[in-house]
Amino acid sequence: MLHPKIQQLLVEQEYYLTRPNRPTSFYNGIYTRWSHPVLTRRHAPLIWKYDFDMAANPNAQERLGINAVFNSGALYKDGHYYLVARVESNDRKSFFAVAESASPVQGFRFWNYPVALPDVNTDADTVCCPETNVYDMRLTAHEDGWIYGIFCSESKACSPGVSLSDACAAAGIVRTKDLRIWERLPNLKTVSPQQRNVVLHPEFVDGEYAFFTRPQNGFIDAGGLCYGSCADITKPEITEEKLVSPRCYHTITESKNGAGAVPIKTDRGWIHIAHGVRNTAAGLRYVLYAFATDLREPWRVIAKPGGFFLAPYGRERVGDVSNVAFCNGAAVNERGEVAIYYASADTRLHVATTTLDLLVDYVFNTPPDALRSTDCVKQRNEMIAENLTILSRENAAQ
Amino acid sequence: MLHPKIQQLLVEQEYYLTRPNRPTSFYNGIYTRWSHPVLTRRHAPLIWKYDFDMAANPNAQERLGINAVFNSGALYKDGHYYLVARVESNDRKSFFAVAESASPVQGFRFWNYPVALPDVNTDADTVCCPETNVYDMRLTAHEDGWIYGIFCSESKACSPGVSLSDACAAAGIVRTKDLRIWERLPNLKTVSPQQRNVVLHPEFVDGEYAFFTRPQNGFIDAGGLCYGSCADITKPEITEEKLVSPRCYHTITESKNGAGAVPIKTDRGWIHIAHGVRNTAAGLRYVLYAFATDLREPWRVIAKPGGFFLAPYGRERVGDVSNVAFCNGAAVNERGEVAIYYASADTRLHVATTTLDLLVDYVFNTPPDALRSTDCVKQRNEMIAENLTILSRENAAQ
Repeated sequence: MLHPKIQQLLVEQEYYLTRPNRPTSFYNGIYTRWSHPVLTRRHAPLIWKYDFDMAANPNAQERLGINAVFNSGALYKDGHYYLVARVESNDRKSFFAVAESASPVQGFRFWNYPVALPDVNTDADTVCCPETNVYDMRLTAHEDGWIYGIFCSESKACSPGVSLSDACAAAGIVRTKDLRIWERLPNLKTVSPQQRNVVLHPEFVDGEYAFFTRPQNGFIDAGGLCYGSCADITKPEITEEKLVSPRCYHTITESKNGAGAVPIKTDRGWIHIAHGVRNTAAGLRYVLYAFATDLREPWRVIAKPGGFFLAPYGRERVGDVSNVAFCNGAAVNERGEVAIYYASADTRLHVATTTLDLLVDYVFNTPPDALRSTDCVKQRNEMIAENLTILSRENAAQ
Repeated sequence: MLHPKIQQLLVEQEYYLTRPNRPTSFYNGIYTRWSHPVLTRRHAPLIWKYDFDMAANPNAQERLGINAVFNSGALYKDGHYYLVARVESNDRKSFFAVAESASPVQGFRFWNYPVALPDVNTDADTVCCPETNVYDMRLTAHEDGWIYGIFCSESKACSPGVSLSDACAAAGIVRTKDLRIWERLPNLKTVSPQQRNVVLHPEFVDGEYAFFTRPQNGFIDAGGLCYGSCADITKPEITEEKLVSPRCYHTITESKNGAGAVPIKTDRGWIHIAHGVRNTAAGLRYVLYAFATDLREPWRVIAKPGGFFLAPYGRERVGDVSNVAFCNGAAVNERGEVAIYYASADTRLHVATTTLDLLVDYVFNTPPDALRSTDCVKQRNEMIAENLTILSRENAAQ
C-alpha cells in the first residue's frame, strides 16, 4: 500500500498536470503569453523525489528534492512536442529530462527516468576537472539524421591558484535518434578556452557542421555571439569564430549575449532568438532578442530589430535568479505555428506562441536600435507624426 | 480605418487612464500612499508604439515598445501638475516626455510628442563620446523666470583601455518657459570628472545659481551630496563643492546618496528629499531620506531625521531594478499640499501625498540616527518609558 500522503500528492499532481492553459491579456501583436508555466518543479514525478517504500519512509519525506525546472531544448516531431529541460536538484546539480505533450502549451509530462547522459571521457575532453554539472541543452534535428544535444559542460577550474568557485565551461555534445539512447561525442574545441550557449545549426553549411558559439576567456567574461564550423562532428573543433551579434554599449546586449533557440528557417532567412544581458544596481538583467541571418550564409545578419523581443513580465520577474528571461528552445509545427519555450528567473519554463509569419513581420519590420537617445526619439517621432495624420484623417471621416 | 485591434487597445487604455486612484491603508502619519501608480508604461500613448498604418502594420505589431516610465521631474503651475518622466524604450534608451493632469494623484496623460531635447554640443561639452542616454530630469522653476531641467547626460567612456560598459555621466542643462520649447545650455563643469543627481536650487544664493551635486570619480564611485554655485548659468562651472550630506557607515547612505527633488521651501528651512543607497546580497537598495537646510545658507543642514523617509513597499519592491525607491520631483500647490513623485524598481511612478506642515513635523521632530545599535536602543527606550507612563495613566483614568 502507498503512504496516504503519497496517494494524496499523486492526486494533487494529476490535477496540476492536466490543468488547461489559456492565453493572457498581454498584447504586442508579436506573440501570445500564457497563464501557466508549461514546466515547473511541480511537474517533476513524485517517484523522483519520494521513497515510496512505506517501511523506509514512514513519514513520507522528500528524499531527493527538485528545486527548479527551466531552460529547455525543444523539438516538434510527428505531432508531439518534446522538451529536454534543465532539472535542478536541491543539491544545485542539474540534469536533463524529457517531457512530452501533444500540445505546445499544456499537458507536458516527464518520462520516468531522466536522460541517461553518458559521462564525459575525462582523459580526452576535459581541460579542467571532471564534469561537475550539465545544463541548457539545445536540441538540433540535423539534416544528417541525428538529433544533437549541445549543452554546457561545467567543471571546476583546476589550474594552480584558482579559487573554490572558479569554473570552466565547455560545450558538451550528445546525439540520439529517439531521445532515449544518447551517444556522447567529445566536447567542442574552440580557439577561446571556454564556451557557453553553443547551438548547432540544423543544416550543413558548405558541407560542414555549423555552430553558433559564445567564446569566453574566463567563466563569465564573454565575447559576443559568434559562428564557426567543423568538418567532422565526431572530432569537433572550430579553428575560427566570426562575430555574428556583438555586445554593444547601452543596448540590451551591453554585458553579454549568446545564442538561444536553434535558428528557425523561414522564406526570408534564419530567425534567431538569442539573449542579451545588461547590468543593473540589482544584478544582471537577461532579456531575449531576435534577429535574422541569410539563408545561405547563416552568419550574416540581414535584419535586427532594436530592443528586446521578450523581457521578464509580472510573476516571471522573481525566482532563484530574478530578472532573467532565457530561451534555449523553440518548436515549429507543420502549420508554421511556433512555440518559444522561455524560462523565467532560472526557476520555471513558460511558452510564448506565435507563427512564422508574425516572427518574420517582427524581425524584418521592427526598426533597428538607433543607439542614441536623440536618434531614438527622431525614429519614434516619425512614426508619431504619421500616426497623428492617420488619426486626424480618421476623425475627419467620422 | 484603424485596425480593429488598435481600436480595442485604445478603448482599454482609456479605461486605464481614467481609472480613479485612492489612498491605501498604509499609515505613518507622514504621508499617504496611493493604490495605483500615476505613470506606467501602459500610460505611453499607443501612437508611440504602434504604426497605425494598416497597410504597413497589418498584424498590429508593436514597432517601438515602451519598457518603463519612471523617475520624473515635477512642477505645479496654474492648477495643473506637470511631470517630465523618464521613458525607457525597449532598446534601453530613455527620453523625456511631459504628462499633465489637474490632479496630483490621477489622470496623467502624456502629450503627443516626447520632449524635443536639443542635442548636446559635442565639441564643447563632452569629455567622452557623444551623449548616448538622458534621464532623471529635475525641474526647477527658478526665480530668474526660467524653468530649468537638469538631467543626467550619459556617454560611453572613450579613453584608451576602458571596457565596453564604461560610461561617463555629466549634468545636462536645458531651460524652457512652457515645457514645449527647450533651450540647451552647456553641460555643468565641476572639479570632479563626473556628476549625477544634480539639482538646481530655485533661488539665487548670494546672487549665484546654486546647485546640489553628487561628485563622482568614476561612473559609480560617488562622494556624497554636495553644494556649489556659479555666477552664469549659460557658462555653468562650479569650482568648489562643499559636502552637505555625507555617506555614512551603517546608515541608509552607506554606499552612496544624492539629491532628489528640488528643495521645498518652508518657514523653517528648505526640505530636501534625497536618496540613500546601501549594498545587500541581492544588489543595491535605494531608499528616500529627508533633511532640512537653512533658508539663507541652503548648504547648512539644520535638521536630519534618522533612517529612511520612504522605502520600497509591497508591489513596489520588484521590477527591472528591484529594491529601488527613487525621487526626482515633488510638486507643491498654493494650499501647501505636497505631491512627492517616486519611482519603484526603475519601472513605474507613484505618488505620496503630504503637506508642508506634516513634512516640517517629520523633518524637525524625528530623532536623528544614533549610529550605534546600543545608542539606538537607548533612544527608543526613552520613548517607550514615556509611552508606558502615558498608558498606565490612561488605564488608571478609566
